[in-house]
Amino acid sequence: MRGEIPDVVVGRLPRYLRALHALQAAGAEVVSSQDLGKRLQVTPAQIRKDLSYFGRFGKQGRGYNITYLLEDLTQILGLDRRWPVILVGVGRLGRAVLGYPGFTPEGFDVVGAFDADEALVGQQVSGVMVRHVSDMASFIQQHSVRIAIVAVPARAAQGMADRLVGYGIQAILNYAPVNLQVPPPVRVRTLDPVLALEALTFYLQTLERQREPAPSGGRG
Amino acid sequence: MRGEIPDVVVGRLPRYLRALHALQAAGAEVVSSQDLGKRLQVTPAQIRKDLSYFGRFGKQGRGYNITYLLEDLTQILGLDRRWPVILVGVGRLGRAVLGYPGFTPEGFDVVGAFDADEALVGQQVSGVMVRHVSDMASFIQQHSVRIAIVAVPARAAQGMADRLVGYGIQAILNYAPVNLQVPPPVRVRTLDPVLALEALTFYLQTLERQREPAPSGGRG
Repeated sequence: MRGEIPDVVVGRLPRYLRALHALQAAGAEVVSSQDLGKRLQVTPAQIRKDLSYFGRFGKQGRGYNITYLLEDLTQILGLDRRWPVILVGVGRLGRAVLGYPGFTPEGFDVVGAFDADEALVGQQVSGVMVRHVSDMASFIQQHSVRIAIVAVPARAAQGMADRLVGYGIQAILNYAPVNLQVPPPVRVRTLDPVLALEALTFYLQTLERQREPAPSGGRG
Repeated sequence: MRGEIPDVVVGRLPRYLRALHALQAAGAEVVSSQDLGKRLQVTPAQIRKDLSYFGRFGKQGRGYNITYLLEDLTQILGLDRRWPVILVGVGRLGRAVLGYPGFTPEGFDVVGAFDADEALVGQQVSGVMVRHVSDMASFIQQHSVRIAIVAVPARAAQGMADRLVGYGIQAILNYAPVNLQVPPPVRVRTLDPVLALEALTFYLQTLERQREPAPSGGRG
């Protein structure tokens, strides 16, 4: 890899991958940074810059070869293999995660689910056996799991993250509305609907402000 | 507002808000960009730069007054009022969304839920009445709704987004694994666990590469 890639760039790469897959499925062989940018609401300049981190330079007027770019991105993102994943917390949200059909086709296998509630232990949820959290350490080791999805209540999330890191987990997909603290090189991504809504209201608020007539004088 | 604020900055503001609320709840009155950065895994320079877009300049060695900064951020993000929100798609994920306790305390009221399945219409899910999607237009107008949460299947998502925009929705929180296309000034935020996992595997892959011994010679 060529130096440090900014996190925001890393965050965009999976979206490029998805858009390229869609283009390929539609029969396209080449895509310009303009077309790709339009699909993703990113400027063409941003796309060219992002991909140049990985040594991919789209030629002006020629565009990117989709097959090659897909191969590159797949390898860069580590998606040329399957990843075992565990889920911790089998409440309402955890059940929705287990029922989500999108993981398997993309290379992620939810191999185990864990909860502290004995009443849930032994149940099959969407084909995954629920185990007690006290069995996590050995399970993680046996199955060489490096990724955990955390769907426990907010108050339990940091403690659970600490345990998971202690057991060797290196990447956490966090659904709890908490800024999890983890030591490097462990990584966290948080999916939080409230944070997303709060960014959206910024734009709604801005729209209103633009529509208000400019004040004709000072405040006092 | 002072010029165009980059989307990545807007995306970080709700996280600042949350961290500041936690600090205030813990009794703090002032926070340095160092402390705030540590909590959020963002550099102090980045925090100073982000907040300077809004005219907030933390003084070296003095830090930010938490109460004032919270007031500012709350207003900037449009969170000094309540926002009515509708949910579209009352499947497994939609039900988890309706059951999520985090919206109300943060100022978001899920006032209506919609589905195309007649069998669901009339049911109460977590205290919200499910209505038929054909009633969306009038409901959105009556309740002055500007924000919709989309939790329909991937194949239905773009069509639903088009309808919602036609009915006056200006902000979409999207759970479908699709790059929704919307006309300006409409905004979309997508919460997609697969995209988040794919960014995480980038880092896992990078870790491995760093651990591999440097090759001692050429490949051939």
